[in-house]
Amino acid sequence: MTGYDLVIRGGNVVTTEGVTSMDVAVRDGTIAALGKGLPDGRHEIDASDRFVLPGGVDAHCHIEQLSGGGLMNADTFETATRSAAFGGTTTVISFAAQHRGDRLRKVVEEYSRLAERGAVTDYAFHLWISDPTPQTLEQDLPQLIEAGHRSIKIFMTYDRVRLLDEQVLDVMMVARKHGALVCAHAENHGMIKWMADRLVSRGYLAPKYHGVSHPRVCEIEAFERLIRFSQLLDQPIMLFHVSTAEGAAVIRRARGEGIKVFAETCPQYLFLTASDLDRPGLEGAKWMCSPPPRSTADQDALWRSLELGDLQLVSSDHAPYRYDATGKLSGGSEANFKQIANGLPGLETRLPLLFNAMVSEGRSSLEKFVDLTATAPAKLYGLHPQKGAIRVGADADVAIWDPDRVVDMTDDGLHDNVGYNPYAGKKIKGWPETVLRRGEVIISDGRLQASPGSGRLQLRKVAPSMRPTGTLSPEFDPASNFGAHLL
Amino acid sequence: MTGYDLVIRGGNVVTTEGVTSMDVAVRDGTIAALGKGLPDGRHEIDASDRFVLPGGVDAHCHIEQLSGGGLMNADTFETATRSAAFGGTTTVISFAAQHRGDRLRKVVEEYSRLAERGAVTDYAFHLWISDPTPQTLEQDLPQLIEAGHRSIKIFMTYDRVRLLDEQVLDVMMVARKHGALVCAHAENHGMIKWMADRLVSRGYLAPKYHGVSHPRVCEIEAFERLIRFSQLLDQPIMLFHVSTAEGAAVIRRARGEGIKVFAETCPQYLFLTASDLDRPGLEGAKWMCSPPPRSTADQDALWRSLELGDLQLVSSDHAPYRYDATGKLSGGSEANFKQIANGLPGLETRLPLLFNAMVSEGRSSLEKFVDLTATAPAKLYGLHPQKGAIRVGADADVAIWDPDRVVDMTDDGLHDNVGYNPYAGKKIKGWPETVLRRGEVIISDGRLQASPGSGRLQLRKVAPSMRPTGTLSPEFDPASNFGAHLL
Amino acid sequence: MTGYDLVIRGGNVVTTEGVTSMDVAVRDGTIAALGKGLPDGRHEIDASDRFVLPGGVDAHCHIEQLSGGGLMNADTFETATRSAAFGGTTTVISFAAQHRGDRLRKVVEEYSRLAERGAVTDYAFHLWISDPTPQTLEQDLPQLIEAGHRSIKIFMTYDRVRLLDEQVLDVMMVARKHGALVCAHAENHGMIKWMADRLVSRGYLAPKYHGVSHPRVCEIEAFERLIRFSQLLDQPIMLFHVSTAEGAAVIRRARGEGIKVFAETCPQYLFLTASDLDRPGLEGAKWMCSPPPRSTADQDALWRSLELGDLQLVSSDHAPYRYDATGKLSGGSEANFKQIANGLPGLETRLPLLFNAMVSEGRSSLEKFVDLTATAPAKLYGLHPQKGAIRVGADADVAIWDPDRVVDMTDDGLHDNVGYNPYAGKKIKGWPETVLRRGEVIISDGRLQASPGSGRLQLRKVAPSMRPTGTLSPEFDPASNFGAHLL
Amino acid sequence: MTGYDLVIRGGNVVTTEGVTSMDVAVRDGTIAALGKGLPDGRHEIDASDRFVLPGGVDAHCHIEQLSGGGLMNADTFETATRSAAFGGTTTVISFAAQHRGDRLRKVVEEYSRLAERGAVTDYAFHLWISDPTPQTLEQDLPQLIEAGHRSIKIFMTYDRVRLLDEQVLDVMMVARKHGALVCAHAENHGMIKWMADRLVSRGYLAPKYHGVSHPRVCEIEAFERLIRFSQLLDQPIMLFHVSTAEGAAVIRRARGEGIKVFAETCPQYLFLTASDLDRPGLEGAKWMCSPPPRSTADQDALWRSLELGDLQLVSSDHAPYRYDATGKLSGGSEANFKQIANGLPGLETRLPLLFNAMVSEGRSSLEKFVDLTATAPAKLYGLHPQKGAIRVGADADVAIWDPDRVVDMTDDGLHDNVGYNPYAGKKIKGWPETVLRRGEVIISDGRLQASPGSGRLQLRKVAPSMRPTGTLSPEFDPASNFGAHLL
Repeated sequence: MTGYDLVIRGGNVVTTEGVTSMDVAVRDGTIAALGKGLPDGRHEIDASDRFVLPGGVDAHCHIEQLSGGGLMNADTFETATRSAAFGGTTTVISFAAQHRGDRLRKVVEEYSRLAERGAVTDYAFHLWISDPTPQTLEQDLPQLIEAGHRSIKIFMTYDRVRLLDEQVLDVMMVARKHGALVCAHAENHGMIKWMADRLVSRGYLAPKYHGVSHPRVCEIEAFERLIRFSQLLDQPIMLFHVSTAEGAAVIRRARGEGIKVFAETCPQYLFLTASDLDRPGLEGAKWMCSPPPRSTADQDALWRSLELGDLQLVSSDHAPYRYDATGKLSGGSEANFKQIANGLPGLETRLPLLFNAMVSEGRSSLEKFVDLTATAPAKLYGLHPQKGAIRVGADADVAIWDPDRVVDMTDDGLHDNVGYNPYAGKKIKGWPETVLRRGEVIISDGRLQASPGSGRLQLRKVAPSMRPTGTLSPEFDPASNFGAHLL
Repeated sequence: MTGYDLVIRGGNVVTTEGVTSMDVAVRDGTIAALGKGLPDGRHEIDASDRFVLPGGVDAHCHIEQLSGGGLMNADTFETATRSAAFGGTTTVISFAAQHRGDRLRKVVEEYSRLAERGAVTDYAFHLWISDPTPQTLEQDLPQLIEAGHRSIKIFMTYDRVRLLDEQVLDVMMVARKHGALVCAHAENHGMIKWMADRLVSRGYLAPKYHGVSHPRVCEIEAFERLIRFSQLLDQPIMLFHVSTAEGAAVIRRARGEGIKVFAETCPQYLFLTASDLDRPGLEGAKWMCSPPPRSTADQDALWRSLELGDLQLVSSDHAPYRYDATGKLSGGSEANFKQIANGLPGLETRLPLLFNAMVSEGRSSLEKFVDLTATAPAKLYGLHPQKGAIRVGADADVAIWDPDRVVDMTDDGLHDNVGYNPYAGKKIKGWPETVLRRGEVIISDGRLQASPGSGRLQLRKVAPSMRPTGTLSPEFDPASNFGAHLL
Repeated sequence: MTGYDLVIRGGNVVTTEGVTSMDVAVRDGTIAALGKGLPDGRHEIDASDRFVLPGGVDAHCHIEQLSGGGLMNADTFETATRSAAFGGTTTVISFAAQHRGDRLRKVVEEYSRLAERGAVTDYAFHLWISDPTPQTLEQDLPQLIEAGHRSIKIFMTYDRVRLLDEQVLDVMMVARKHGALVCAHAENHGMIKWMADRLVSRGYLAPKYHGVSHPRVCEIEAFERLIRFSQLLDQPIMLFHVSTAEGAAVIRRARGEGIKVFAETCPQYLFLTASDLDRPGLEGAKWMCSPPPRSTADQDALWRSLELGDLQLVSSDHAPYRYDATGKLSGGSEANFKQIANGLPGLETRLPLLFNAMVSEGRSSLEKFVDLTATAPAKLYGLHPQKGAIRVGADADVAIWDPDRVVDMTDDGLHDNVGYNPYAGKKIKGWPETVLRRGEVIISDGRLQASPGSGRLQLRKVAPSMRPTGTLSPEFDPASNFGAHLL
Repeated sequence: MTGYDLVIRGGNVVTTEGVTSMDVAVRDGTIAALGKGLPDGRHEIDASDRFVLPGGVDAHCHIEQLSGGGLMNADTFETATRSAAFGGTTTVISFAAQHRGDRLRKVVEEYSRLAERGAVTDYAFHLWISDPTPQTLEQDLPQLIEAGHRSIKIFMTYDRVRLLDEQVLDVMMVARKHGALVCAHAENHGMIKWMADRLVSRGYLAPKYHGVSHPRVCEIEAFERLIRFSQLLDQPIMLFHVSTAEGAAVIRRARGEGIKVFAETCPQYLFLTASDLDRPGLEGAKWMCSPPPRSTADQDALWRSLELGDLQLVSSDHAPYRYDATGKLSGGSEANFKQIANGLPGLETRLPLLFNAMVSEGRSSLEKFVDLTATAPAKLYGLHPQKGAIRVGADADVAIWDPDRVVDMTDDGLHDNVGYNPYAGKKIKGWPETVLRRGEVIISDGRLQASPGSGRLQLRKVAPSMRPTGTLSPEFDPASNFGAHLL
């Protein structure tokens, strides 16, 4: 047994189980030992007075991708994952986005090529399904799932990508058979369309009306609908970007009834409100995302739901568009809110925002912070045991945080290609200063140390989150006349 | 003050407030007095040992109408209302059914003509909207509502008639502005389609699979969705034919949250179960309706919900098709369940079935029976104060019941044109023996005494049930930037 | 059949079913006929432009009674029922209050004597049990119930009258066997004691701390406990004076679970708040009652619960003490809030306050007003069919209201013996001008027309509200080893 | 940095985060390192093909203690902790039981002496309060809590130990001020007394009637009551031995409302039912415990609640009495169920029963098993970070399990002093074969290797579970007139 390549010495190591002052030894890119007074490594990092955390896992981000509306993200894999790394995140799950007419297998190949060229963090893909043809459902999707792409993204709204209810059931059934987690953008399409048409036709055009056009109930309704699909097929579901107190309550109720529902929220729903969109001219566009930010009462409810475990993780939903003609303003300076791309950058700020709130301001604990941002996403999406925790045998993805560093966020302080920071003006205490990916330092001294394309694709296994509960609807009851073989 | 045309003497008169031994005096077709020892009328009916009830109001029946699938009902207004009258019902609300391409105004004219020709009971129309064009929404529907057609029927399923979510909102908004109650067939279209396709493609073709193709959650989901629409627009909604315990629970929850939801159930959900469809060959078709009958546990839950007031009325959903090539078997003797028309006859049996259960078997009370079958429907649909109660000033629509008469139901014992009775074999105690409509005897001595076309159209006023609660969604809050003028 | 003694002509007669312009004919003290154009009576009252309502039934008032604390009410039967009559109420249910050591049979005899001497309205008694000895439980209580005293009052707090949990079960079981409704003052004794001791020992002595000493949860807890007792024994329960939104929600949940719970609230919880107690010196004592008034949010919740039917009636809880040394100030001018008697006068103001809010201000309807204040209490307490409705055969207890009369409430405007009006300063629109009891005018022209002692004791029958549901707890399941014979 | 005293080599180490094949190195009684290929220790244990788990923490057991009924436990600290160790448990929390008249400080001294003499595992005490005198509340309890005895046990039933509601509030307030967790035996005293008296007086005497005398609602009610106390004071509460589905649902609802409630269940509620008490003669006494075992539906609900986190831990509630005249039969062979001591042995079987169900039979996961039985109890009770996990820096309390060992449970196979095993006849797969306490082997080769008294008292710190939420009741709102200084 040879020596250690690297020892991170004397830090306060954080796992979901607790905070321990100890050394972390790395060999061959994985964590070889944890302990007090471990022998010297070939390299040493002094982590005294620092917190040693697992690198973040950001399970929801849009990178180098065409939106449903046909607009390209501002970020490439290089700029996006660079930004992620600066923010302490070492694994991202972005989208292999099938648009109608696309062959899913090819889509995955293309996104893989883009990522291989640019990524500096490790990565995986959600299979974004907008064209569930027989070929997609019977060939490509099963093969890709079995190959390790074990999550699927579906949309219940947006004209060009949304699925009909029966198509949602088709996709869920394939996921059920082959073992994948179905993630959903769940908002009621008709309500949004109806509200937006009404607003625009009456001349309510400013970005703030985007929020009005996505009424709270459109989220609540869509959650309820997907939960019923989940109940019918006994197939787990992941609800993306929960924004409302009522939405969180619907999830709690469903979980209590034994329905296997998972859910994330995002920093924008924990730190922004509808009034952030209320700016002169089109500037509110910078804070436009779907669903929109709500109220401080919703923020409180979401925090509670995270503590209760009804929501299990916080992702960024990084959806980067510049505030210029290539992005937010591609519809022109007279655009109405329907002509403005939705989305905020968030890969770099997700962890500092949460660290500041949960740890520095004392709202929660370091252990919960690690769970929401790294351990839980890794487990839910099948990245465990390689990712998401400081564990012997895991990849040595590590972020060393200076809990005392204070950063004043500014529009030009981030490392993505977006050009603004929705949280500019906010003061943050606690920031990652050194970041390792599989034992290699990728961020230190404020500089990126990794080369584009050094990130690796993570193929995944079936996680417990992906398995049915075994409690069937009466319609599929084996005791009935025909039963379970329909599933 | 001239004398009375008729006195019904010495009966036990039933209202929702109680049972009173008294006389009922009629003048000019309306009830002129109630009392003990009223003076002689020009005609007298001895009602000793009888119960004197308001004539039933059946708020949900299909008469002389093309189904969504294009099949004509077995009953004309003559046969349907004759059957209703024999069963103690004196007012029906059937459908003026707009199919796609139809001009709504013409549709109402046509159904009015049919009813004028045949009806022996009084009647009103639900405006069935399947083509919410601008002409429908902006011209015909407002005019018809204002003229007194104050209820609308929409479908969330069935390919040829269903509305999209945004269309549902359009219709609800017109109802909100002009004062009408929106009634819905609420089942999730995608789930039914998905289940049915799957069943048929795997060879599960018999009538009993109709039940499986409408899983319980498809009702629950659609209730939840409509309730959210109701909440968004602050517009009341009436949920037709509740069949499941969970559906009833969803309604209770919504009502507790202050959302204005009304709901009916039907005898088929109180007296039949899924196993009634499990017969050799196609015979199960006789019990096929949508939603399908469920379980005895659901029956119990529905009874409880009626007692609690979460469900307010019991209608028949009379949807008459003969068990022959003109009706149930129009798809041929090899038809699968998707090729068989849905619906049961029920106009004549609704009241005796309920009387037998609620009164003769003691499950509830006479007062509640009258409420569920006459008073509540009259009030909810704007027929009050003319219809639905033994009240001074109301139309003298009266059914005199013999509580001791025992009837063995048989397939050929009814007076509709359907040819079978889904409850054949059941023994009923309590039957209406004399029925009056606006003071005229229309049933006595087992014979119809009224001529076709003697029924009258009931134009209706805005009922309290049709008014918003005044509690607006945040999106429409007058205190927000733009607010309530969107509604 | 002789003529009518009296005809009230041309009024708008209100029942729970609607408002009808008609005449009301009285013969031998009961309503003989309702109708348009009834023949002349020996006496006639012109009720044009008036509302003709059933006389109110006030199901909860303290009259000529020693409180738990040993203080005598300010009102005798004469002053209390006179006040009631002026407010449109014709039947009251007060207490036959057993204190410890009292023989229950004697208690009823004594209160009967007091009422016979003074009452001008009809009356009944709740059997107040504070000493459930074997003699009480096995002899007096069964006999009194069978004799027609079909309601029982128990206390969960107040040292000298409260029952222990096992005693509550004893009383409920006697009620179950003989058919009576158990009504409860439900607040947690320990919480009140703990809070009050803590407040007083720290020098928080003013009347407003009375409110703090009865925290919201003390009501909620006690409701939950009684509901579990009700569930265990399958015995209905009536919860008195609901004051909180959460309390109302607990009741709704229980009812939805099939537990037979009834509940009242009182005007003080619909029109007052905690801040009414916050006055200089001891003046807040005038608004002290238990439970205390809460917040406007609670008021809103209680109104919603009344509309939903979760709460079924509004009583006064008239508990009269003068604001002088004979009453509120009997503990002296330095008294702390624990030394001040609880209770407000309310017999006379109950109906006008509710009429003003529900009818004049449009919060609800005339029908609902009549239900909450007359019909529902009569039915729940077994006074139906004699009391609570304008019905043929019922006692001619009638209040003729002038809907346009405006009254400015003042401290000296009432007809009780209390000397203040907790609602002084409030402007009321709508007031009863003529009141009849069993066909006799007892109030007209602003004067009492009846002599003391002309009111009559109402012995009652078993009402549906008093019967078990038939759904037994597992412990009493006949299918278990021993079962239902324990009950 | 010197070498390791011991290395447990090559086992599958289980934490709540996952299962890792690695070595565990021990130095000075604590875990010094975890890793792959750690250097040799002075001692080595080969753990290939074994699971290396944290030693169990049993947070609820009665040892060498007088019951509320005055009967001495069958087990001394020596026999009880010996039995625990054989079952893989290395820390127990038993009771320092104050009976009325006892000085609490002395009680703790006495139990400490007993434990010092006999314990082979580490241990802590719950402070059992049955006499909350001023001396107890103001002197002894605060001092003992501050000294590290940070949990309190209260009873809501049992005549000689139960507290009144106001006393419960007193104790909770002391816990709130000084930082301790209040644990409760929560059953409604009155219901139990009432039922038992009724049963006994009617001759239902057999052990099975013990179950009937504790109806389900007596648990539900008491949970609701304590939850309201917790809500009032914003003080966390731990509900012991949850037995019913409804009880678990009440807890879930409270947690969802933000009330800080924790809860345990025990193997007897997961593996036994009411019918286990139904045996000839008095034999059912062996399975008598309070609350009693319920039904298989309750078992299922409790398992679900454990998975959802509504219940956080599984303890034994070891309450040992021999089935002879010294224990269960001390009331004689004609005893009725009220004369028989309640309680089952469980220290030794707790972990194997759960391992078998959760791991061998696949109902859950190894990680969850470790959480419920070691990590969660350690954290909740302030034993973290020393106890409850395989973590660097933690005490080296380790149980090495053979997952394939099959044990047929028999009455004489345990190491306590009870003489029977309530699970005799059950086949268990998976058993701890080597157990270490602070790095010392205490069980190996089927033999105890530790001497009596080698266990150590664990004084504890304030855990997050012991802190208020900060959300105050309106009564204590700082914004109100007097506010938070009452707390």
